[in-house]
Amino acid sequence: MVNGIERPLDLLNSSKGKEVLVQLKGDKQFVGTLIAFDIHPNLVLDNAKEMQDGEIKKNIGLTFLRGDVIVFISPASTALK
Amino acid sequence: MVNGIERPLDLLNSSKGKEVLVQLKGDKQFVGTLIAFDIHPNLVLDNAKEMQDGEIKKNIGLTFLRGDVIVFISPASTALK
Amino acid sequence: MVNGIERPLDLLNSSKGKEVLVQLKGDKQFVGTLIAFDIHPNLVLDNAKEMQDGEIKKNIGLTFLRGDVIVFISPASTALK
Amino acid sequence: MVNGIERPLDLLNSSKGKEVLVQLKGDKQFVGTLIAFDIHPNLVLDNAKEMQDGEIKKNIGLTFLRGDVIVFISPASTALK
Amino acid sequence: MVNGIERPLDLLNSSKGKEVLVQLKGDKQFVGTLIAFDIHPNLVLDNAKEMQDGEIKKNIGLTFLRGDVIVFISPASTALK
Amino acid sequence: MVNGIERPLDLLNSSKGKEVLVQLKGDKQFVGTLIAFDIHPNLVLDNAKEMQDGEIKKNIGLTFLRGDVIVFISPASTALK
Amino acid sequence: MVNGIERPLDLLNSSKGKEVLVQLKGDKQFVGTLIAFDIHPNLVLDNAKEMQDGEIKKNIGLTFLRGDVIVFISPASTALK
Repeated sequence: MVNGIERPLDLLNSSKGKEVLVQLKGDKQFVGTLIAFDIHPNLVLDNAKEMQDGEIKKNIGLTFLRGDVIVFISPASTALK
Repeated sequence: MVNGIERPLDLLNSSKGKEVLVQLKGDKQFVGTLIAFDIHPNLVLDNAKEMQDGEIKKNIGLTFLRGDVIVFISPASTALK
Repeated sequence: MVNGIERPLDLLNSSKGKEVLVQLKGDKQFVGTLIAFDIHPNLVLDNAKEMQDGEIKKNIGLTFLRGDVIVFISPASTALK
Repeated sequence: MVNGIERPLDLLNSSKGKEVLVQLKGDKQFVGTLIAFDIHPNLVLDNAKEMQDGEIKKNIGLTFLRGDVIVFISPASTALK
Repeated sequence: MVNGIERPLDLLNSSKGKEVLVQLKGDKQFVGTLIAFDIHPNLVLDNAKEMQDGEIKKNIGLTFLRGDVIVFISPASTALK
Repeated sequence: MVNGIERPLDLLNSSKGKEVLVQLKGDKQFVGTLIAFDIHPNLVLDNAKEMQDGEIKKNIGLTFLRGDVIVFISPASTALK
Repeated sequence: MVNGIERPLDLLNSSKGKEVLVQLKGDKQFVGTLIAFDIHPNLVLDNAKEMQDGEIKKNIGLTFLRGDVIVFISPASTALK
């Protein structure tokens, strides 16, 4: 997946429609399908689930996440294997 | 609802007039009808209620929420089912 | 009051001259008459009172509140009923 | 004093040369004569005194206060009566 | 490696394709191959591992790290010897 | 010294070459001769000393202080009398 | 060294190639040779060492330090004598 990543947002672009793991400040994590992003990057996730210690804590469904609270975003295929 | 979401704010646009769940930094939650938003995104909610552990803590009514304090915004139809 | 609110600041505009409840970060609350606001939104309140647990803690009178410290702003007619 | 306040900074303009109470983040308070301000608003106070629980804690004299640390600014005539 | 570093981002440019150590605010560390960066600097790391006390805590794989949470970035060849 | 202060930075300009007291967020204080400043305001102090409870804790000498960490800046002639 | 410092960044410019002490928010300190800086100021240090209580805690080598986490920067010749 590294091929074609010239700028950081290219990774988000190639992750559209796929499951991502999003780490927030203060230890919350979300897993969900990346639907949209912008430069902050604010995200829209579908089928979002709040995770804690690798377990699903809450189903959130469709959600808008503010970029300001994000630490990292990883394709779930590499982060959750 | 995912159809037609190209940018994150499209989710807010398609949620206008509907009930949303808003998670704030520091664990406060609001539920209310989304009336208006801007790019920060600052929100106006109607019939807003402050929630704690899934229970209504306080009725706020009509309210302007500063975008800076928001973690995520979800349509209540998916987040509260 | 929802009629005519297209953008979040429209709620503040329609609240000018009326009593508002302002929640600050860190749990302080102010109640006062909204005199002026800008895009941050910084506010000027008249007859401002600092509140704690629904009780008046201190009379501040006329005050300039920095937008950066604000969580939400509600018309007192809906938030304090 | 409310007459003629169209924008929040108008209150600071009409307070020039008068005593103001400035509440900082983290509970420090200053009382002093407002000499100058800008849009942040950074302030210059003369005869500034650091206050705690309504008592003078320290005389600072002439001081430049960074706007970023300010919660609210009030004319002392209304805030300290 | 110091030769040719005129501006801070030049160090990141010369570290592309190499392993870097990234210190985050709040004591988390990442080690991974630097794939891309921008001016914030947001980073993309490949084969990223979360470290604690010099031990691998978690394999993250490919990841987008927000610049806002970063304290320092060092070539692993100098930081981990 | 109040004469001629139209904008907050005018106080810093008239303090160049003189001793100032700089209060940082988190209770550190510096005393030193103000050499230069910009609009943030970042400062350069000469003969800077870190103070605690009115005692010199450490000699720093010449130093660049980031404006972002500053609470207030006062001419030492008025703040330390 | 004070001669020729008109603006704060002039001190960093005259410190290029020399050892500097960098104080970070949250009490970490770095000592290293200043290689490059920009307006934030982000820094590149060579032979960087993390210090605690005047002792070397860790050798980092070449490092990119984000300006956002910096409190002050001093020439080591004046700060560590």
